[in-house]
Amino acid sequence: MCNACVIDSVKRSMLSRRSLFTGAAATTAAVVAAGLTSARPALAAGSGKVADLTHAWDSDFPTFDGNPGILYEEAVNIDKSGYQLYKLTIFEHSGTHIDAPLHFSKDGMSVDEIPAGNLVCPLCVIDLKAKAKYDANAMVEPADIEAWVSANGEIPAGACVAFNSGWADKVATPEFRNTPDGNFAFPGFSKAATDLLATMNVACIGTDTLSLDPGNSADFAVHNSWLPSGRYGIEGLAGLDAVPARGATIFVGAPKHKKGTGGPARVLAVY
Amino acid sequence: MCNACVIDSVKRSMLSRRSLFTGAAATTAAVVAAGLTSARPALAAGSGKVADLTHAWDSDFPTFDGNPGILYEEAVNIDKSGYQLYKLTIFEHSGTHIDAPLHFSKDGMSVDEIPAGNLVCPLCVIDLKAKAKYDANAMVEPADIEAWVSANGEIPAGACVAFNSGWADKVATPEFRNTPDGNFAFPGFSKAATDLLATMNVACIGTDTLSLDPGNSADFAVHNSWLPSGRYGIEGLAGLDAVPARGATIFVGAPKHKKGTGGPARVLAVY
Ligand SMILES: [Zn+2]
Ligand SMILES: [Zn+2]
Repeated sequence: MCNACVIDSVKRSMLSRRSLFTGAAATTAAVVAAGLTSARPALAAGSGKVADLTHAWDSDFPTFDGNPGILYEEAVNIDKSGYQLYKLTIFEHSGTHIDAPLHFSKDGMSVDEIPAGNLVCPLCVIDLKAKAKYDANAMVEPADIEAWVSANGEIPAGACVAFNSGWADKVATPEFRNTPDGNFAFPGFSKAATDLLATMNVACIGTDTLSLDPGNSADFAVHNSWLPSGRYGIEGLAGLDAVPARGATIFVGAPKHKKGTGGPARVLAVY
Repeated sequence: MCNACVIDSVKRSMLSRRSLFTGAAATTAAVVAAGLTSARPALAAGSGKVADLTHAWDSDFPTFDGNPGILYEEAVNIDKSGYQLYKLTIFEHSGTHIDAPLHFSKDGMSVDEIPAGNLVCPLCVIDLKAKAKYDANAMVEPADIEAWVSANGEIPAGACVAFNSGWADKVATPEFRNTPDGNFAFPGFSKAATDLLATMNVACIGTDTLSLDPGNSADFAVHNSWLPSGRYGIEGLAGLDAVPARGATIFVGAPKHKKGTGGPARVLAVY
């Protein structure tokens, strides 16, 4: 399907689709029985399984700048006080985390301002493993989106479009971040792909790598266009092997500190 | 219904209920149409609305110890670098947040160890507003749970049982935390109530106040029993007026830093 066709069919579907249920798992009977006409969110009628798309993390978790993204300091000691807790130092863009528009724009939405409805999204997973196997800086291109639509149908309104490059499995190794000679190397989105997604009422894009842009990006073209357009991103997703290409619903537990540019998030999928 | 009756009927229901759908909104037709037999999570067949049960917060948000729960420091400046982000200092038990078992037990589960399936829960909301109006330290008692069951049916397996005391509306005032003479004063659970809930396959308890225990608690009886039993809590919930007493599904975006005793969470409900 050509780019223009994708856009047209998505626009048509946005006008006509008002069901709670989407995806291959939905049946007409279920839709009728539920009798619902709410526009969002599209809750997948799945098996009732929960997938955790979040890495457990600590000071060893790889970061873009190479410094620890989180540091722990004992704040209350259980032997002295009967309970315990840590004082944490956290750099916002660490672990599985959100990029809010404010991260790359002076007047963009902060992470607490992302509407809650945009945190519950139909999840579309693009398999980038084959491309990433022979090119560590592989990109999601418009053709990958077209192929996904051909195989899975239109991208639902308010979706999270994420790629699974297999990078999450490398998280405990240096290859998650760079080549042996120290150059950044990991898959990302191409700007042409996210420009296409921006025409489709997509709420957010997600990666299983350190960035929205590929490791060898010179200009952070996706960060500099997608985020200032008022949309958000998720970086460092885990567990995408567990969920189907289409039919899961993602719950993006973005942090809600005021004026935040993003931050560590808990991302769960129900499918 | 007496305590023993509640327990018996819950046990019976746990043996027999294996449907994806729960709550008043579910129809037999929908259950049959979906044809599902997954034990968890119980996804409410609701209107498709999203409620945000999380306070937006910053250094002014009230805390138990009175010190700011979060501090911001600019880490990257957008004029210099083209993007921006904060270095945050966060005390784990601040904002709308999780109490993991490890908070009150040396060998309890840390926040990253809570199973993902226990973060997607049928939500049961106990209205505590009438009691809290004449007693700032009002408690959820077993009778309140029995009354909820009489009105709404059995508590679903894996539920989050939360109370709505109206306290979220006071969050910007000193009354959220203490009386004018400086004594802690806010509603909480009684230990008798959480002991009852512990027999019911309840995954977590939630409050719209600073604590699981009421403000005038001398011994943190609920913290010291509920958490060491391997269950978790949510404190500082917001927005509970928006959701029904029964029928919503809660997504608990707990942080996932290793060995954490808890931490700020994004909590969303779909209903
Ligand atoms: Zn980023
Ligand atoms: Zn607590």
